Formats: sequence, C-alpha cells, structure tokens
Amino acid sequence: MGPGPINADPRVLRAMSAQLLGQFDPVMTEYMNETQALYRDVFDTSNEHTLLVDGTSRAGIEAALVSLIEPGDRVLVPVFGRFGLLLAEIAERAGAEVHVRHVEWGQVFTAEAIEQAIVETRPQLLAVVHGDTSTTMMQPLAELGDICSRHGVLFYTDVTASLGGNAFQADAWGLDAVTAGLQKCLAGPSGTAPATFSPRAAAVIRSRSHVEAGIRETGDVLAHRPIRSNYFDLSMLFDYGGARRLNHHTEATTALYGARECARLLVDEGMSAAIERHRLHGSAMLAGVQGLGLSVFGDLEHRMNNVVAVWIPDGVNGDEVRGVMLNDFGIEIGTSFGPLHGQVWRIGTMGYNARKDAVLTTLAVLEQVLRRSGARVAGGGGVGAALDRYDDAARPGVSPETGSMSAASAVAGPRLAAS
Amino acid sequence: MGPGPINADPRVLRAMSAQLLGQFDPVMTEYMNETQALYRDVFDTSNEHTLLVDGTSRAGIEAALVSLIEPGDRVLVPVFGRFGLLLAEIAERAGAEVHVRHVEWGQVFTAEAIEQAIVETRPQLLAVVHGDTSTTMMQPLAELGDICSRHGVLFYTDVTASLGGNAFQADAWGLDAVTAGLQKCLAGPSGTAPATFSPRAAAVIRSRSHVEAGIRETGDVLAHRPIRSNYFDLSMLFDYGGARRLNHHTEATTALYGARECARLLVDEGMSAAIERHRLHGSAMLAGVQGLGLSVFGDLEHRMNNVVAVWIPDGVNGDEVRGVMLNDFGIEIGTSFGPLHGQVWRIGTMGYNARKDAVLTTLAVLEQVLRRSGARVAGGGGVGAALDRYDDAARPGVSPETGSMSAASAVAGPRLAAS
Repeated sequence: MGPGPINADPRVLRAMSAQLLGQFDPVMTEYMNETQALYRDVFDTSNEHTLLVDGTSRAGIEAALVSLIEPGDRVLVPVFGRFGLLLAEIAERAGAEVHVRHVEWGQVFTAEAIEQAIVETRPQLLAVVHGDTSTTMMQPLAELGDICSRHGVLFYTDVTASLGGNAFQADAWGLDAVTAGLQKCLAGPSGTAPATFSPRAAAVIRSRSHVEAGIRETGDVLAHRPIRSNYFDLSMLFDYGGARRLNHHTEATTALYGARECARLLVDEGMSAAIERHRLHGSAMLAGVQGLGLSVFGDLEHRMNNVVAVWIPDGVNGDEVRGVMLNDFGIEIGTSFGPLHGQVWRIGTMGYNARKDAVLTTLAVLEQVLRRSGARVAGGGGVGAALDRYDDAARPGVSPETGSMSAASAVAGPRLAAS
Repeated sequence: MGPGPINADPRVLRAMSAQLLGQFDPVMTEYMNETQALYRDVFDTSNEHTLLVDGTSRAGIEAALVSLIEPGDRVLVPVFGRFGLLLAEIAERAGAEVHVRHVEWGQVFTAEAIEQAIVETRPQLLAVVHGDTSTTMMQPLAELGDICSRHGVLFYTDVTASLGGNAFQADAWGLDAVTAGLQKCLAGPSGTAPATFSPRAAAVIRSRSHVEAGIRETGDVLAHRPIRSNYFDLSMLFDYGGARRLNHHTEATTALYGARECARLLVDEGMSAAIERHRLHGSAMLAGVQGLGLSVFGDLEHRMNNVVAVWIPDGVNGDEVRGVMLNDFGIEIGTSFGPLHGQVWRIGTMGYNARKDAVLTTLAVLEQVLRRSGARVAGGGGVGAALDRYDDAARPGVSPETGSMSAASAVAGPRLAAS
C-alpha cells in the first residue's frame, strides 16, 4: 500500500509465466502490434509510434529525452517534486541547457507561470512530470499543449505515477512525448516503460536516424549526429516495432506479456471506469486517514487519486511504524524523499490495490500501530470514515466529487500529538 | 532451437510469477544480495560490484561502456561478427575514439594480433565479444588479461552468448568488466543483464560518481564530469545495490526473481557440469547436422558449444525451411545477419534446450523438411550420428573431446545440392 511498486494483478503475473517466443516469430510480432494498439487506448492517442522501452520507467524518460534533445538544446523543467529534479538531471546528462523553475513541494504550477518561463527561456522542449509521487501532486496539463504549440515547443510528460488512475489524454492535451511505467495504476511489475510519440516528435527523432553497421542496407541514410545512446535510440525502436522489423535489442518477451496484460485489463475495464475506481478508493483512503486524525500534506485540489501523503504525528517514529506494519501485518507504506523524508508517510491505492478490502484493512492496521506507537487515536475513526465514504458513493444522487468535499475541508486538521 | 532467445526453463517462469515486493522490503534487499552472490559464482569472480542492469543484454553493454568511457577515450574493438560491430557503435556513441580491427567472419583473433593492435592504438579500454552468435565463434580470452594488464588497458567482454555454456573465469582471465544476458545458456527471458566489475574498473566508475539532487546528502561529492547516462550510471547502481541503498530505478522485481532463479539453477547444477552439458548436446547437434550432409560454417576449433551455423544447401530456400519448421513443427531455428543473412541457419542447443530430446527431435524434423524442400538427404543420417555421439559419450574411456573429433574432421564436407 505504498506509493508503488505495489502488488501486481495476479492476472498479469500469470500472463508473464507463459513460455517465450522468438522475437520474429509471427505470433510474437503480432503480440507486439497488439500491445502497441492497446497502449494507444491507454494513452488516448492515435500516435503510430506507441511502443515499449525495455527498462524501468526512468529508462522510458531517458529514451524520450536523449532521443529528442540534441546537445545544446534548451529544456525547461518545472519542478514540483523529486521526479522533476530527475527530468532535469537526465536532460542535463543528455547535453541540454536545462532551465528549472520551482514551486514549493505540495503545490503545482499555473499555466501562466509555465508560459512565462517559456517566454523567458525559449526552450526546444518542455519536460514536466504529470503526477510526482514524491509529493502526491498532479500538474494540470490540459492547457499546456496549446501554449507549447503557440511557442513552437515540444511537450513531454512522464505519467508513470498517474496513468490509469487519473484522467489523461495524450492527443487532446497536445502531448508530443509521453512515458510511463507499469508499477503504479497499471498493476504490473516495474521493468517496462510504455511510451508514445506524436508525428512532430517522431519527425525530430527520425531526423537523427541511424542503422547499425551489422544490419545496414544499401540506401540507409545515416544522421550526421546520431542519438547519443544506442539502447535508447527511439529511431531504432521505431524500425524494430515498425514494418522494417530491424533487429535491435532482444525483445524482453516476459516483460512484453506483462505489459500487454496490464493494458488489456485497463482497456477491458474501460479507462473511465478505471480512473473512477481509483478516485473512489483514493477518496476513501483520504477520508480514512483524516478520520484517524492525521493531517494530509499538500494541495488537495491537485492530489493524484492514487496516493496520499500524511504528516507523521509529532513524537511518532515514522520508520518504526512502517517497520511494524510491514513485519507484523504484512502491509507496506512509504515515506518520501528529500525534504519530506521521515516527515510524511505515503499511502497508495493503486492498480490491484485500489480495492475496498485493501483500503479498510490498511486503515484498521494503521490505527492499531499508531496506538501502540503512543499516538492518540480515535478507535474506528479511520475505517468508519472510509465506510461512510463508500456508503455516500453508493447512494444515488451523491457524486464522488461531492462525497469527497467533506474530506477536503479537513486539510488543515490538527496534527496528532504523541501521548 | 535458434541462437536465442530460447525456451526459458519452466522453473524460471514459475519464480517470476511470485507476487512483488517493495524494493526496500528487507526480504527484497536480501534477494538482491543473494542474487549478487549467485552471479559471483556464475562469473567466477570475487568482485564486490556484481549486479543486474534492468534491461536487455545490450543495456548491460551500454552501461559498462558509457560508465567506463570518458568522451575522447580510445577504445579498441576487435570485430569478428555483428556483436563486435555493436560494441564499436555503442562505444562511439559514448564519445570514444574507436579503433576497430577485423578478421573474416568465422575466424577469431590471435592474442598476438590483439596485443599488436593495443601497441598501435594505445587504448584506455579493450572491448571484445566473447562468443559472437552471429558467427558462432568464441574469442579466446585467457591470455588477454595479462596483455591488458601489461599495457595498462581496461579489459571488457560481453558474454551474453557464451556464459553458462562455455568455460569462463572473470578473475583468472583478468577481466575488468563483464556483461551478460539471460536468454541463452542461462535459460531465462531477455530483459536483465548481469554484470561484474573489478576493483580497478569500479575505481574508474567511482571517480565519476554522482548523486541525484532529489536524494543528495551533505558530504556527497559530485564528479566534475558525470557519466553521460543516468539510467546506465553504474556508480549509482553501486550505491543502490550496496550498503547505502540509495534509490535509483524502481527495481524490476519480476526480472530479478527470474535472474536469481537462472543463477540458482546453474550454481546448483555446478558450473562445470552445466558447461559439460552444453558441450555434449552441442557436439551431438554438430554430429547430427553433419550426418545429414550439411556443411558447417566457420572455424570449428573456436565454435561455441551452444550454437552451430550450417550452410543453407544450394537451391534450398532457407527462410521457407525455417517457416515450415516453425509453423508445421513448432521448432524455431535462426538465420544470421549481414553477410551471412540467408546463407546459414543457426541452430542452438542452450539453456533449457540443451537436452537430448530437443536435439534429436530437431534433427528428425530438419531431415523431413530438407527432403520436402528438394534436398537430397540420407534418411536417419542426422539422428543416427547424434545418437552415436551420445553413445560415445556414455562409453567409459571416450572423452567428450575425443568424441567430437570425428565431427571436426568433416568440416570441409560437401555442400548439399538440391535434387
């Protein structure tokens, strides 16, 4: 029940236990095509260039950035948590002139602030995290595509933490490049990074195209300045997954089976239904931790559905609580990074763990462990508030939005004191 | 039965279907430690820095090269097949001044030729493939460590195709950096690259150490010129897998379970026994294809145990034969790359497929398909020769070496003519 990785859906693990196929077996190439199509639905895009990078979610980030950035390019990164810092760091290593803007952790940027920074720095690329798990905040993206388009800026986002649990529309929002991972709302294991690229981004990448000496054919044009990485050269991945089927890495078959099943489960459920499920269980968890008397970190207006950060009460040893929950109850929750390390717990409700029983059990256990750690805690306060939330949601005429209002009003609630 | 990826051992797939653990769960960090220890046995090394790169085998190559090479460094790559070209290409993209030496495909280099090239080019790094599946050849490495040591050159090899099926001793042979993959003799799926680094290589990598802004602590010293990649920054992987447990990528849990099981199976069998198993079944396959009247490609003195390349007989459509074998009999064999594409078939006997029944069934099917494709073929010639080979090996006093001599003498045998 941490901020991810979380339990995988058992159906994903079963899919991954299938025997391997050769990468050019027609059944395998058809699986690759199917998987591309499924991720078009997940990303809500018609981009031809929708594919998997064989590595964890930061491999997807690096593939996008190193393929889009030419050394010396200006890149603007609005940072509202640790993963914004990561985008900046990866862009720097790719040779970019990186410009960073900061807001306080727990907040997000206004569209105006980002447009102003674009005007000031005239970047080739805007790179922004959608949901930053380190703070649980989610940057609104819907207005940024138009801004980028007006200023001739490529628009990239990482949706590892948010995809599948929060509204996202790659095409409607004007995204040029999007990368993700499986280990959050997609209910799979870390190790595969789904990604999608607009025709505009693909043209930039194609202009740096390269074919390896070992498999080069007459007529292959080689870019003057190829992409700095072979493994992350997206022009090669386009040729591998596309009609030419030019050999690149040996496809990670088991990982592909898993990624395909993650997408199938979401698409079968319906993306809207999946997002609504995350909203429901996320709001029940929020109501529950507030019902226990805990204070929530950050701007709740911009919280992701699938993770909540709560202040660790004064006098309570956060790591000890986490240890007891994990070792005695088998439930993992997280802390955070940098300025929030040891200050907050992060509790997730995502993917296979966006379930009523998972929410209620976690709250029941948290109450017990808080009490044993010396905190004053209202018996049944957490589970009760969550159950109320589920009842509200089930009652006709009460929208999930309205239902969660009572929770939001409790943001500034008192922090628990240790007794 | 191709050159890999091949069927995974079902025990590996079962291990991969276990539920996920958080990456800092003590059980998980203990698995990480265990896996490092197991790969020390597989690589035959005492290197502390033995770890997994979360990506396919070429991710391991790129991690090693980009972490060891500073832009402008001279790198020497002796090329005897496609994967040598790949090392050169990855080194070039890492900013190296790459010097390449070639031998004809089907041959390997003498130690003298490599030493002479070192004297001529004075590289910081020698990068050479151990077994190059594109030609099935295996470069002898045992003498190169001393040569590199005398000339102050770092010594790197990729053993993806050879490890587990052929003798390999990282420490005794003086290797500084070694990378591998699971999809050959390790009987697992592509997607994880085990790797090991000598103290000398680790010192070079450590000198370029970097800690991400999001998790940096007071006292962390940052290198003036960090490694060009974040994902492949081995100094970060050292901190992640080592005592500091500094967060980097989200460990690919399922892949780690698989990599751990691959190594456990090999270590339980005993590395020598595993190599002997590959030698036995590889020599039976060699005897079998020669018994069918096929000619074998390359210098058999330097062939890997686990894959054989045979000339496609004149008048036979190689891809059609492969298609019939795959679609009608469910057996995959490969062709090769570049100058060998469409000229040879590559037939593997590796990992889970280094088994008597797999060898005999493949030979029985190949005979049927060859006959239907119009080739003249001796009925029972392949299976008979392989069975003789197994009988020889089982008879006391006949060593596997001696048993394979008869096969080696048939190298120059006549190529089949289509009838």
